[in-house]
Amino acid sequence: MVDGVAHVDEKHGDEFDLIASVFAPLAKDSGALGLRDDAAVLRPPEGHELLVSCDAINEGEHFLKDDPADSIGHKALAVTLSDLAAKGARPYAYLLSLSLPRDISPDWLKGLAAGLDALQTEAGVALVGGDTTASQGGISIVVTGLGLVPQGHAVLRLGAKPGDRLYVSGTIGDAHLGLRLLQDPTLAETWGLSGEDVVFLVERYRRPSPRFDLALLVQNFAQASIDVSDGLVGDIDKLCQVSHVGTTLMTQNIPFSPAARKALACEPGLLPSLITAGDDYELVAAVPERCVAAFEAEVEAKQLRFASIAEVGGGDLQVRVLDAKGEKLALSHRGFSHF
Amino acid sequence: MVDGVAHVDEKHGDEFDLIASVFAPLAKDSGALGLRDDAAVLRPPEGHELLVSCDAINEGEHFLKDDPADSIGHKALAVTLSDLAAKGARPYAYLLSLSLPRDISPDWLKGLAAGLDALQTEAGVALVGGDTTASQGGISIVVTGLGLVPQGHAVLRLGAKPGDRLYVSGTIGDAHLGLRLLQDPTLAETWGLSGEDVVFLVERYRRPSPRFDLALLVQNFAQASIDVSDGLVGDIDKLCQVSHVGTTLMTQNIPFSPAARKALACEPGLLPSLITAGDDYELVAAVPERCVAAFEAEVEAKQLRFASIAEVGGGDLQVRVLDAKGEKLALSHRGFSHF
Repeated sequence: MVDGVAHVDEKHGDEFDLIASVFAPLAKDSGALGLRDDAAVLRPPEGHELLVSCDAINEGEHFLKDDPADSIGHKALAVTLSDLAAKGARPYAYLLSLSLPRDISPDWLKGLAAGLDALQTEAGVALVGGDTTASQGGISIVVTGLGLVPQGHAVLRLGAKPGDRLYVSGTIGDAHLGLRLLQDPTLAETWGLSGEDVVFLVERYRRPSPRFDLALLVQNFAQASIDVSDGLVGDIDKLCQVSHVGTTLMTQNIPFSPAARKALACEPGLLPSLITAGDDYELVAAVPERCVAAFEAEVEAKQLRFASIAEVGGGDLQVRVLDAKGEKLALSHRGFSHF
Repeated sequence: MVDGVAHVDEKHGDEFDLIASVFAPLAKDSGALGLRDDAAVLRPPEGHELLVSCDAINEGEHFLKDDPADSIGHKALAVTLSDLAAKGARPYAYLLSLSLPRDISPDWLKGLAAGLDALQTEAGVALVGGDTTASQGGISIVVTGLGLVPQGHAVLRLGAKPGDRLYVSGTIGDAHLGLRLLQDPTLAETWGLSGEDVVFLVERYRRPSPRFDLALLVQNFAQASIDVSDGLVGDIDKLCQVSHVGTTLMTQNIPFSPAARKALACEPGLLPSLITAGDDYELVAAVPERCVAAFEAEVEAKQLRFASIAEVGGGDLQVRVLDAKGEKLALSHRGFSHF
């Protein structure tokens, strides 16, 4: 973008004018320099730590070619905002790197920008820089997100202690079901889902809600946190590994949406996939026992969704998953892996 | 990476262990959290501005499939460090987003890391985060670079004034010739180049030298600056457009390497390509007349290469290019454009 805006190739002026006009309105921060410089110039407020994360979403891997362009823009920003929320950070600024096939259409670009615009407005953040390059493969979008927390208040994966209570926000597994439904619409009937259920699940796949509204709660109460992007079991495993603790997850404590419960009732064998497939963009927080009452009171007062799912144990570093009968659930894998 | 390192997919543990072991040594900053968290935690020193830039390099566009992996790692970091240098910033930290085909080899990954490691050591910067995802297209690498300048001292594209002298570092057009030679090795004979010349030009394409050693000079003396990534004429055009000034470039003032001079002598028609093709990663700096003597003294004392190429004019916003006879040089385009 930064480079794209200012290109002066006379043969191709129109495309760059388009990119400039489409993305410039997203650059509401003065440090963005109208996206017409080599870099953004930011002055983070003093007394804060800066959190920085970047995530790629690639065609055919994180989104489908036919997904609406605005949902792709939404998702590109959402996945990075989710990382920042898990660290207790408020969103500060973001950069956008677009690798695009040469035949990309103006309407697609406008759709992408609309999706970014809606989510950045909701999150209170703005575009400050980036670049646009051609790709000989499919579309690849990388968002680099910057967040702020008061000095010393970033919540890491490291820090969970035996006796902490593990909470997860929202519901788990919806995005996986949404993706399955996009790949095979006949599953709606198999799973006994209404049209509304299908829309809900597909939207959870296409437009995940990063939990930036929970960041302050995480910052105030959690001593370790992770975002659930690669599967609940695998991500809890990561948090436990780094913190040198273990835990036992009881599947009946895991929060599922009404639509996911319907699918599970028809096909109980879906359970392992729901808790390992990823794309949830919910938060897992380890809250020390002494803060549990205050945390739960705050969650209730603000009508937030944070379900208590397990207690952190010491001893070994295992994450065990037990089904409703208390038997070990067979999992072929613990989280989504690209490789 | 951040996510990659901690993946726990049991079927694929080896690949992720490899990624972890290959890239973890590049994460020498404590804020990187061993690349095992959702985001890096940085504490930029107070009293500074933070410069942030991201650039993608894509297979077939910015590098060739057969380029050595270490040169690809080098280039990925170099293009972003070049942006920061142009703003007068010292490198502070970087993030790496890798989109890779599933059949990528361990040796290729090790080569990539070696290229990153050598350049980050030279530049005094370290990896703090990133991610690794699968790509159904070719390799795409995005580096987000963070740099620091004392508050108020970032050098923008905006700020050139009539009467300023324009300087360019190093030599122009080598990378274009290097790429042409890789595409058609018989050109070496056409252009009367020695084996050494060919190696020099190919290296200028594969391993451009970002001018972070010139950043302080730019910060101290330039009132506008840009890095030459998309062609000298086009990039000067961008600087002039934003600054609302114009200039006239005399081609005999543009610095060319001995190898490029040989090629030009054999094929004078190469001239327009050399000054518009890009990939130079040199810096253009606008130095106000009152600082010219001090700037040139410093350049000479430090044995740096900064050639005076033009004077900034007012009036219109044109960038004119005149050949040795003072006639307007015909250019089919002014800079490299992806679209």
